[in-house]
Amino acid sequence: MTKATLPPFTPLVDSLPASVPFVGPEALERMHERAFLARIGANESVFGPSPLAIEAMQAEAKGVWQYGDPENFELKQALAKKHGITADHIAIGEGIDGLLGYLVRLFVEAGVHVVTTDGAYPTFNYHVTGFGGHLHKVSFKDDREDPAALLDKANEVGARIIYLSNPNNPMGSTNPARIIEDLADNLPPQTLLCLDEAYADFLDAAQMPDIAPDHPQIIRMRTFSKAYGMAGARIGYAITHTELATAFHKIRNHFGMSRISQAGALAALDDTGYLAAIRTKVGRALSDIAAIAVENGLAPLASATNFLAIDCGGDGRRAAKVMQSLISQGIFVRMPGTAPQNRCIRITAGTPEDCKHLAACLPKALAAAKQN
Amino acid sequence: MTKATLPPFTPLVDSLPASVPFVGPEALERMHERAFLARIGANESVFGPSPLAIEAMQAEAKGVWQYGDPENFELKQALAKKHGITADHIAIGEGIDGLLGYLVRLFVEAGVHVVTTDGAYPTFNYHVTGFGGHLHKVSFKDDREDPAALLDKANEVGARIIYLSNPNNPMGSTNPARIIEDLADNLPPQTLLCLDEAYADFLDAAQMPDIAPDHPQIIRMRTFSKAYGMAGARIGYAITHTELATAFHKIRNHFGMSRISQAGALAALDDTGYLAAIRTKVGRALSDIAAIAVENGLAPLASATNFLAIDCGGDGRRAAKVMQSLISQGIFVRMPGTAPQNRCIRITAGTPEDCKHLAACLPKALAAAKQN
Repeated sequence: MTKATLPPFTPLVDSLPASVPFVGPEALERMHERAFLARIGANESVFGPSPLAIEAMQAEAKGVWQYGDPENFELKQALAKKHGITADHIAIGEGIDGLLGYLVRLFVEAGVHVVTTDGAYPTFNYHVTGFGGHLHKVSFKDDREDPAALLDKANEVGARIIYLSNPNNPMGSTNPARIIEDLADNLPPQTLLCLDEAYADFLDAAQMPDIAPDHPQIIRMRTFSKAYGMAGARIGYAITHTELATAFHKIRNHFGMSRISQAGALAALDDTGYLAAIRTKVGRALSDIAAIAVENGLAPLASATNFLAIDCGGDGRRAAKVMQSLISQGIFVRMPGTAPQNRCIRITAGTPEDCKHLAACLPKALAAAKQN
Repeated sequence: MTKATLPPFTPLVDSLPASVPFVGPEALERMHERAFLARIGANESVFGPSPLAIEAMQAEAKGVWQYGDPENFELKQALAKKHGITADHIAIGEGIDGLLGYLVRLFVEAGVHVVTTDGAYPTFNYHVTGFGGHLHKVSFKDDREDPAALLDKANEVGARIIYLSNPNNPMGSTNPARIIEDLADNLPPQTLLCLDEAYADFLDAAQMPDIAPDHPQIIRMRTFSKAYGMAGARIGYAITHTELATAFHKIRNHFGMSRISQAGALAALDDTGYLAAIRTKVGRALSDIAAIAVENGLAPLASATNFLAIDCGGDGRRAAKVMQSLISQGIFVRMPGTAPQNRCIRITAGTPEDCKHLAACLPKALAAAKQN
């Protein structure tokens, strides 16, 4: 006989909302019953992956009957070479999202304090809440994450983790390498600094902070989802102290990586000229988008990434109207979630075709935002 | 200045071993410094995925710059159609391994009891331990999982979850549908039955237990890793009560699925004749392997899966010697971990070429096992 109720979840799970960090563009397309003309809202790379990576993934499709190497041996070797470190400093996971989940699980339980910036990456917050941690948020300062405020708050609450994205999403801003290096040198003794460097590949390596890989209180998150154009392949990696890199083995989904993705990432790293070419294309696209913004009387912010935050010249309600109108016209964009950053919409570097659609739709969006 | 130590892990993480559930064949190949002649140890499908799935994955490689749909909308619709249920009964994740991790996280914390069979799937145990649960193990009975013993133990300890794989791995045995249905009808009120049905596609649907999808105490795990030949794509799904299916959204890695895998799975489901053809090939391969075993004086067990447990006629030490010799000769096989099931080695259905290699290497392996 069928019983009436589900077995009880843990009290922690019971306390969690069923909300999701992001609504995907496909859900919006289903809602609006049309495909987007321009998909420039999730900071994906419209320029796609390296042709070498595409070829490698296509070749590996036939071999997908085999599980991927759970040790990610070859990919770790190649990443170690890229970064001039040994492979035991590297942890690999199902995107930075997956790695952030594992990282939080390693350090956070009920009663543990974590510090981040209000309006920074919500998926990190999702994991902290999901493991029962106590989140503390400091404000942006001049649209940048504020290392001094993060450090003060960490000292105040005895934080186990400080999360800092550099370059920052959603504003596109950076902190100078020296500032991050100072932060790394002045951490409270029991605090880990999680540097989300998803957008690092859009900068020269010299612009990124110089931190020894054996610093025991730093983990740097990198990804193939942005400059490498492989968001759908789910490959993130972390650079950190060997002891922390090893600890991931205690809890990770050992066979979690797609074999096709492993092959694609390996080939992408072989295409040494690729990132430079992408940065040129992204630079051109952001110039185009900035020009479109300026033509429409809007103020694009400086960006160290593959997207632009564009000040819509009002408050969050105004920017939301602009974004909604763009979405309903077929242009997928997003916007920051907290004031005053939510005066902006966030637009990803698009193809020339994407930019043309944006140029056609933005005036109508601004008119709509003025009206009501 | 660099601090000397890592921030502290949670006490639970500190208590976990760094051991892994399985060593992958690639690690063995690196250790032996040679590629395997036959990869028939991980119950992968050497016959590969449907040509339609390969084609779809190859086509999607170019689109991999986009994140996959976090709602897995189309794939859920197609799976709902396959199973004659609505999509809200389905949860999708990064292989059954990933889903088992999420499931355990939903229900298990320190002090929660869980029941499984000694020698059943170690990755489930890994997750239970990883979330602080207390594992209780009952024995196989005649090389089958023993629903009565599982139920008794669950009643005794007040288990939150009973894990039962049917068909069973590593023995290849099944329990009659009626027995599982009885178990489902007699669960203690606060116990969830997790049915791992990874090998279900090797049976007729009519041979599987008939359980209403809205039974609030059952979750059934399925996969594209076995009969569909897509282990490296990491696609598992669960069929369960809508409330439990929804609860996964509270904790899962929403953007964790590979976009290429999603496309491949969708195309695989479209190839309606594929599973029947695979079952024919698997049946032929298992007959060949059984014949090789018998020729060598060994006793293959009955199998409802794509692998055979083969009784090596001694204890675990003897079977381990046979396995080790096969591995060092280039034949990747595995074996059960607990007595008396560890009198067997476990061999996956191979290609005719794989079987030829096995036939050539097995006599030497048996001779080696006799010698020392």
